[in-house]
Formats: sequence, structure tokens, C-alpha cells
Amino acid sequence: MRAYILSTGDELVRGRTLDRNAGEIAAALSAEGLTVVGMTTAGDEQPELVAAMRRACHAADIVVMSGGLGPTEDDCTRSAAAQAAGVSLRRDPALEAWLRERWAERGLTMPRSNLRQADLPEGADAVPNAYGTAPGFRVEIDGSHLFALPGPPREMRGVLADEVIPRIRRIAGPGDQVVQTRTVETFGARESDVGERIADLMGRDARPRVGTTAARGTIRVVLHAEGPQVEVAALLADGEAEIRRRLGKLVFGVDGATLADVVGTRLLAMGTTVSCAESCTGGLLAGALTGVPGVSDVFPGAVVTYSNTEKTRLLGVPEELIATAGAVSEDVARAMAEGVRASFATDLGIAVTGIAGPAGGSVLKPVGTVHLALASAAGTTHRRVVLPGDRELVRELAVKCALDLLRRALQQPVGVVPRTTSREL
Amino acid sequence: MRAYILSTGDELVRGRTLDRNAGEIAAALSAEGLTVVGMTTAGDEQPELVAAMRRACHAADIVVMSGGLGPTEDDCTRSAAAQAAGVSLRRDPALEAWLRERWAERGLTMPRSNLRQADLPEGADAVPNAYGTAPGFRVEIDGSHLFALPGPPREMRGVLADEVIPRIRRIAGPGDQVVQTRTVETFGARESDVGERIADLMGRDARPRVGTTAARGTIRVVLHAEGPQVEVAALLADGEAEIRRRLGKLVFGVDGATLADVVGTRLLAMGTTVSCAESCTGGLLAGALTGVPGVSDVFPGAVVTYSNTEKTRLLGVPEELIATAGAVSEDVARAMAEGVRASFATDLGIAVTGIAGPAGGSVLKPVGTVHLALASAAGTTHRRVVLPGDRELVRELAVKCALDLLRRALQQPVGVVPRTTSREL
Repeated sequence: MRAYILSTGDELVRGRTLDRNAGEIAAALSAEGLTVVGMTTAGDEQPELVAAMRRACHAADIVVMSGGLGPTEDDCTRSAAAQAAGVSLRRDPALEAWLRERWAERGLTMPRSNLRQADLPEGADAVPNAYGTAPGFRVEIDGSHLFALPGPPREMRGVLADEVIPRIRRIAGPGDQVVQTRTVETFGARESDVGERIADLMGRDARPRVGTTAARGTIRVVLHAEGPQVEVAALLADGEAEIRRRLGKLVFGVDGATLADVVGTRLLAMGTTVSCAESCTGGLLAGALTGVPGVSDVFPGAVVTYSNTEKTRLLGVPEELIATAGAVSEDVARAMAEGVRASFATDLGIAVTGIAGPAGGSVLKPVGTVHLALASAAGTTHRRVVLPGDRELVRELAVKCALDLLRRALQQPVGVVPRTTSREL
Repeated sequence: MRAYILSTGDELVRGRTLDRNAGEIAAALSAEGLTVVGMTTAGDEQPELVAAMRRACHAADIVVMSGGLGPTEDDCTRSAAAQAAGVSLRRDPALEAWLRERWAERGLTMPRSNLRQADLPEGADAVPNAYGTAPGFRVEIDGSHLFALPGPPREMRGVLADEVIPRIRRIAGPGDQVVQTRTVETFGARESDVGERIADLMGRDARPRVGTTAARGTIRVVLHAEGPQVEVAALLADGEAEIRRRLGKLVFGVDGATLADVVGTRLLAMGTTVSCAESCTGGLLAGALTGVPGVSDVFPGAVVTYSNTEKTRLLGVPEELIATAGAVSEDVARAMAEGVRASFATDLGIAVTGIAGPAGGSVLKPVGTVHLALASAAGTTHRRVVLPGDRELVRELAVKCALDLLRRALQQPVGVVPRTTSREL
């Protein structure tokens, strides 16, 4: 079946907001075996949106669109869809009741303007939104199905997965061709290094097709296969195994796994506790680790010691050491890691100190210089890196380097993880 | 003048690659005063690309497209443009010589397949590419100008700035028409509440045009005006003043300012020091504050007290208080804020404790319940919020609420900011 994707919003056609929805919807529909024949973005002008809807419904059997379902005047997806379908808008009493309930649940009275969100084109079905207060809908236009989803990415994603994909499966019926992608996530090497190790797998006619993409320090190897389900599953499994064989410890997960997830899950599985001492990352390392649900069992806390005084007071780093070696140095990183481990009485203590920029760099310690240390009962390991990019990227990459240091340590069965009660070792 | 943007590539319509080009081109053309009326993405099938080119040229005076200029079979922008213009392709000898030179410069012999990149539609002009080996071109279709640019973002960006924008300026003529946007950033109210307060300004024919967008708790009011430079500047200034009058303290900045920037800048300007005590946000609040360059002058550090033991050890929160009131409570938030302020000897101490989920909620304290407290010499203020969304969103919104509490306190001239040496008061 053919699919078309629409996005609407003045902020998109003016280039103020990057549209990530269209690509996500394209990936989801492609994974269902649909052929996406095009994607169009329209502004908030109703006549243009109506024309885009009509063309999309003419070109495809399924049209999935996002945006324009908010409560304000400039949200015209509902009225545009009615016009494109040649019907009028009517207020849906069930939807109105649902809206009032959503607001009441949160102890609020619904503003009058939100009533507009209970309007649907005649003959349309409401598509529930469990992630917000803007309901979606499905309407037939010119014999095709148009699904309208809310624009906020989190809501779009939830409604697409929970409500729209199941409906599309019922419309499309069973098919034996699938298109699937597997992503192998790596950290610790450049894209060109990764590419060289798998160059012979990257031919245009290879099955699975193999490519690489780089995103802020993480290099992803993307495998893509089309065909009958069984064949595709085997191609991707074999491809993944070969990539893992070639890339070894660089690989930390598949299909969107993050370093924080991998480390958090492993800490929980092993019952290994960790605390952090952060300088240049300013709390972002602790923030990444605490993004993993349940991590409180192994993570009592962290300190952000931005000033030298606090490095001494909270972590016991000797003042003289900071004065002689400098706050950004191997010795101070080691002392921070050992200090935080002792202070929080954890199995592991990890520390980051560096120069995020834009100021503070020198010839010997340029902006991007970061010292990492990991303390355990078996001793303390250290790593120095010089990271590229602006303040934001240096900090983000420093967090990833710290997580990667933890990940690699947690993969070593001996010594580094002393108080373990692991199921995995 | 009206503009349309096209992108081509199977990787885009399959959702494997996020198209950042279209948004960048939209921003660049909007800044030149062109009105972008739509954007479309087509796959690598020539008939669909031809149809998209014809529609775009029909809808706009200027069409800028990216992709499909490579040397392989699936790169069909050249032949599609020829077909859309109703002319044939011919090899351009100057372009062929240029291509051979580019390869020779790198000590390489040009593969035969790359000769294809010297083909242009009859009557087209080549558009040089100083960033790669895929030349672009300009061709007239149906009285409109279509510019074809290479797809790799770095090449597209370079060619757009160096070659295409200057040509578009010549086509558009001197023209005193400009298009400008101002964004007023707000926090602390729902989109519908903001919308109601400015509903009468949001008519379709209003000047400036006014719209709202919501992004993870931040509501942006977007003002957009076209016309002569002087008039546009006045419209936006008056519009901004009116929006600020209507929305008062909800407004925290303009044109992409973040809460962290605003708070960090204000702390620095006032010489007011702050420390953080974080539970559910796990370091993200400190991480946001330390994203502001130079903030180390007013931010000595923070503690992440994820466990109750650490709340007592590092912040002096009484064990009995945690046992009776619960770790997520007004009393504990207040004690954390006061404890961190005393521990770090800062002017302000801010604390966040809450239930980010997915587990840990109850009827009285549902997931999303967050207590915030801000301690100063003048006393401690408290705020309780119940935030929507998943773990990630709750944490992100909790950080924004904490920053907003700081922002509002820093705007009050009396009491809250004791040790101030402000230039602004």
C-alpha cells in the first residue's frame, strides 16, 4: 500500500522548528511494509493545507499527518480535513466529555477555547490521545484514509504506536513483505574507523544493506533488509552478528539503546553501587544515570563540585594537589573519584573534570581536555581525552566517555566490581 | 516572492535519515523575505520527482531543492529537471573539465560514472560547488527558477550561501520587503491560557501575525510580519510590547532564550550565588545551570541526594522528618533547600524532590508530584506541582519549574536576594 505523510505548521515552513515527526512516521510506516511515496509540509493557511490533503489522498491509500490540532485559532487541521472531505465540522459529545474529564482529572476547568478540540469532520472517528489533551481523528477523503495526529513529538509517537499502526494493519490486511532495520550502537571510535572495518559489507547491493551514521560521538551501523519476514529476520541476525564480530567492544547495544541505559541496567543486574563527582559536566552525568528507572537501588547520589573549595570540602581533594597539578588533571580526577567513592560508600566512584570552554583553555590544556577517573576496591583507572566541539558538545561527549568507562569496567569480571552479587558473572 | 522547497532521496521517505536541509533552506529563504509556501520530499523515483517539481514551480517563483545529484543510477534530479522543463539533457564541456580537474587535484582518476554529473538540462546554468564534486544547477520551469543543490548538508549549506542566495537576491531585485519573526518565550501557563489572553491578536489578517507553539512546557508566542524594514521593525516592537503587557511575568525572554540562560545571566549580573539539592531531577538542574558559560563565578556546586540517607548526611534533613512527611513533601523540600544553602554558604539554595515515575506514585502523591523550595536569607518559599508525561518529561519540566522559581525570585527587588550588588535593581 502507498502512504503519504503531511506536516503542518508555520514554524516548519519558516525553518524555525525542525520537523522530526515526518521522518519518524516514515520509518514506522516503512517498517509496516508500506511504501511512502512522498512527504509534504504546509503552513497554517487552510487553503494550502486542504490542497495538500487532497493531493496526498489522491497519491496514496494511507495519509498520516501531524500538527494543527491545538486549541488556538491557527490550528486548522480539523476544518481543513472537513473541507477536503467535503463535509462539515460537528461537535462530538463523547469527545467533549472525554476532554472535560482529562482536565478534571488534573483538578482544572477546561478553557472554552479547548472545546474546539471536540470538533470532528462529519463521519470521522476520534483517535484517542493518552499523552495529551489534543485528540486525533481518522477521516476518509477521496477513498483514502487520513489520520490526523497531534504535533508534539511525544504525543505523536504515542498515538501513532498505540492507535494508528494497529488501525493501519487492519486496513492493509496481512502481507508477507516486511522492511526492517536494525541499528548497532557503538562508542569509542570515529565513523571512518568503524567504516573501514566493515567497508566490504557496505556495497549498494549488499543484503542486508549496511550504512553508518554519526550522532554526537555515537556511531550507528544501520542494517536494512526487505523481503519475507523469516528471511529478513535471518539477514538482520546474521548481519548484526558479523558487525559485532568486527567491532568487538565498540558495540554497546542495538536499536537506539543509550550508554546510560546499558550502564544503568548492568549496575542494577549486578547490584553494584556507584556515585559521581562532577566538575565540567556539572550534573549531567548523574542526570543521565538517573534517567534509568529504578536506578535509585544502586545510586545513592552525586556531588557537583564546580569550585575548588567544594572539591576539597566534599571530596577531600587536598588543596595543595589542586594548586600544583591544577583542577583539570589526572591527580585531581583520581582524588575526586576516590573521594566520592569513600564519601558515599559505594562500590564505584566516577569523576569528571575538564575544560568545557569557551574560556579556560591553554596550550597545554586546550578547551575539550577532560580527565576521567573510576575508583573501585581494586584501584583507580584514569583516562584523558581531548574532545571536539562547543561547550555543549564537550559536556555531552564527556558524559558519554564517563558512561563508556563505566560500561567497559562492568564488562570485566575480575576485581573492578568487588561487592558484586551478580547474576551475570 | 513565493518559494517552495523540495528534497529527494529514498532514505528520507523511508525515515532512515532525518532531513535537516529543508528546514535550513526554509530559514534562509524566510530571512531573505521570501514566503515559503510548502516543502515536499520525494523518493528516488523519477516520475514522482518530476510531478513534485512541476507542482512546486507552479506554486512558487523560486524552488530550492537538495539531493539526487550524485553519480549513481538512483540520482535522478538532472533528468527529472530536464523532463519537468520539457527539454533534453546535454553534456556541458566546461563542467566536464571542472569535474576532471577536481578529481585530478586529489590525485585520482574520475570514474566513468561521474561523467553523468556534467549533464545539465538544456538552457540550465551550472551552480559551482566548492565543497564537493556534485555541481548544482539552475533551470527555468514554467516561468519559475528551480535551483538544484547537492544533498550532503555541509555541501548544501555552502552552495546555498555562496551561490544560490546571491542569485535569488538578483532575481528578487532590491525590494524593500522583508519578513521577520520575533518569538516571545513564556513559562508557567498552558498554551490554551496563553492563547485566551491574546486571542484577539491572533486573527488571520492581523499584523503582525501571532501564533503559539508549545514545546515541553515552554509556550512560545510567535510574531511574524512582512513589509518594508522600518514598518516591520515597528510592528514587531509594538507586538512584543503588547504581548508582554498581556502575559506579564509569564514572559522570560525572546527569540530562543532559555530559562537557564536567563537565570544564569541574571545571577551573574547580580553577583548572587546559588547551590542546588536535587532528588528526582538527579543532577539535571545543576547541568542546566552549568550550561551557561562563566556561571562558575556564582555556582560553587550541587548535591544529588537520591537516597534518604544522603539527604540526611549531606543536607541535614532530619531522619524523622523524612519518616513522617515522606521524602517527597513540602517539609523535606524546604529542609533540603535550607540545608544546601547552609552547606555551600550561598545566597540562594534551591531544592527539588518528586516522583518522576514510572513507579513510586500513589493516590495522594501521583507520579509527576514535585515539591520545589527556594531558600534565601529572607526565608524559604515552596511550590508544589503535578507534572504530566513520562519520566523524561517530568524530570525536564521539574528542572524548568525550578529555574522559573529562581527567575521569578530574581525579579523581586526586596528580601529574596540579600547579598546583591545588582546593577539592575
